[in-house]
Amino acid sequence: QAQRIEGAQWLPNRRGTAPGQWLELEDGHLVALLPGPPRELVPMVDEFLLPKLQQWADTTVFHRFLHVVGLTESEVEDRLFPWLHGAANPSMATYIDVGEVLVRVSVSGEKAIAAKKLEEAVAQAREALGEAVYAVSNLPEEGSLVSTVEDLLAARGETLSVAESCTGGWIAKLLTDQPGSSRVFLLGAVSYSNQAKEQILGVDPKILASEGAVSEPVARQMAEGVRNRAGSTYAIATTGIAGPEGGSLEKPVGLVYTAIATPQMTQVFRDRFRGERDLVRIRAAKMALSRLRLAILRQG
Amino acid sequence: QAQRIEGAQWLPNRRGTAPGQWLELEDGHLVALLPGPPRELVPMVDEFLLPKLQQWADTTVFHRFLHVVGLTESEVEDRLFPWLHGAANPSMATYIDVGEVLVRVSVSGEKAIAAKKLEEAVAQAREALGEAVYAVSNLPEEGSLVSTVEDLLAARGETLSVAESCTGGWIAKLLTDQPGSSRVFLLGAVSYSNQAKEQILGVDPKILASEGAVSEPVARQMAEGVRNRAGSTYAIATTGIAGPEGGSLEKPVGLVYTAIATPQMTQVFRDRFRGERDLVRIRAAKMALSRLRLAILRQG
Repeated sequence: QAQRIEGAQWLPNRRGTAPGQWLELEDGHLVALLPGPPRELVPMVDEFLLPKLQQWADTTVFHRFLHVVGLTESEVEDRLFPWLHGAANPSMATYIDVGEVLVRVSVSGEKAIAAKKLEEAVAQAREALGEAVYAVSNLPEEGSLVSTVEDLLAARGETLSVAESCTGGWIAKLLTDQPGSSRVFLLGAVSYSNQAKEQILGVDPKILASEGAVSEPVARQMAEGVRNRAGSTYAIATTGIAGPEGGSLEKPVGLVYTAIATPQMTQVFRDRFRGERDLVRIRAAKMALSRLRLAILRQG
Repeated sequence: QAQRIEGAQWLPNRRGTAPGQWLELEDGHLVALLPGPPRELVPMVDEFLLPKLQQWADTTVFHRFLHVVGLTESEVEDRLFPWLHGAANPSMATYIDVGEVLVRVSVSGEKAIAAKKLEEAVAQAREALGEAVYAVSNLPEEGSLVSTVEDLLAARGETLSVAESCTGGWIAKLLTDQPGSSRVFLLGAVSYSNQAKEQILGVDPKILASEGAVSEPVARQMAEGVRNRAGSTYAIATTGIAGPEGGSLEKPVGLVYTAIATPQMTQVFRDRFRGERDLVRIRAAKMALSRLRLAILRQG
């Protein structure tokens, strides 16, 4: 139903409705008409308007994004110090995503030269950050931790199961947010109660009683239990105190045990995550996926 | 570290840091100083600033919020037509929340009279909307569907388990977003694969083969299976096609079967939810919780 303004080009819309328009005026100004609803507007800006603006601009700036998990922003800053402070071309900037850090590498100049410079800068940043870099992408929203892990598993023909206590289904939700996870994700068990930990995952009631639900051996037994139940290659388990209540001196709010079970062994990690309930939960979920990724890579 | 401006009152901050300030100038203007970080700002506005502004204003407007699930916005509009269109005092307005509708009932005037009028208007709206109203609150963010269901279960000493396919852990995540769900939530099983449906929930492989995973009998068996496994009073199960791929003429994207198992019976509902993957998933999750609520209420 949209009418095209004389002289304007259509901007395509992947949803096929209410396309935008693009008009270059003779005085050098640029007019872009875009649909109002955010669900139509946002992808259109990302997919069509920004790349077109990039082309249109006289001096081209090229970006790449490094997705980093398992390092804090200040650890990332330490490792990239020369590029973050004072460097003009290439330059880098860090952004906080929840439980992750995003590093933007920027180079400006003529296309062919800039592209080469960009590749070099990305390689240097990767080297400085090591295995904490789980993906490199052209747009910030490309390359999620979940899709990286799922693609890795799918390429190896391997599978995953998850037993969640403090993360309460959030890891399962992350794994199933995008289609296609049924290739690799066999079973999620949200064992919020001790009863479920015992009956479904086979956690030893004596250990639960003596060590408590938030403990190293319970995390280990949860991961091994769900891996056996599901018959999966790997398993993740989380048990912790998401807060705001339930903390103690010995087991404070934010304490999370994460277990990663592989065909060879089970490793348990002890972390203390800062922040409110939701932040503790999502950080624990991201960290668990990050550790699974490293465990898979170490399988060779 | 904040310094108080001369003559200003502190506005309390439940996080105990960077309190805001409130200063009434002689010319009748009002100055409110608030902390910048949204996590501090937002609760402060909701909890302290808005109630204080309410007091401060000459003409007081009183609001109540009805939380509605299981009716579309246009169904709500039909039932509340006279108050939505043309009525001044009381007046009503509808807002879309994801998978829910929020109805704001407003009355202005002198406090005692307005309060009485407000109660009457809320009672009329409740009658018009029936059991789709799951909560009435003073602030829009109070009274979630999840807390309503969990409090209902806790008051009855009853428990819940969940088997999720298309919602992929989202119901479990909703149930555990707030602390305290371990009172009532025993087990969540995210059975994204057929293997998990068979092995963990005891779904009949023959039925899976003949009817497909997205079918009425599979939803039923999932709910009954997880209820037996967990030994819970009730169980919810979801199986559907969240999209964007995987739809067919017979089983289109958005088709979801929801089963509610009670001690007496299992009911299965067939819905077609519109929207993208995330919307289909959250709408299915909310509708399942809504149906559980009604099933509990009908237990008497």
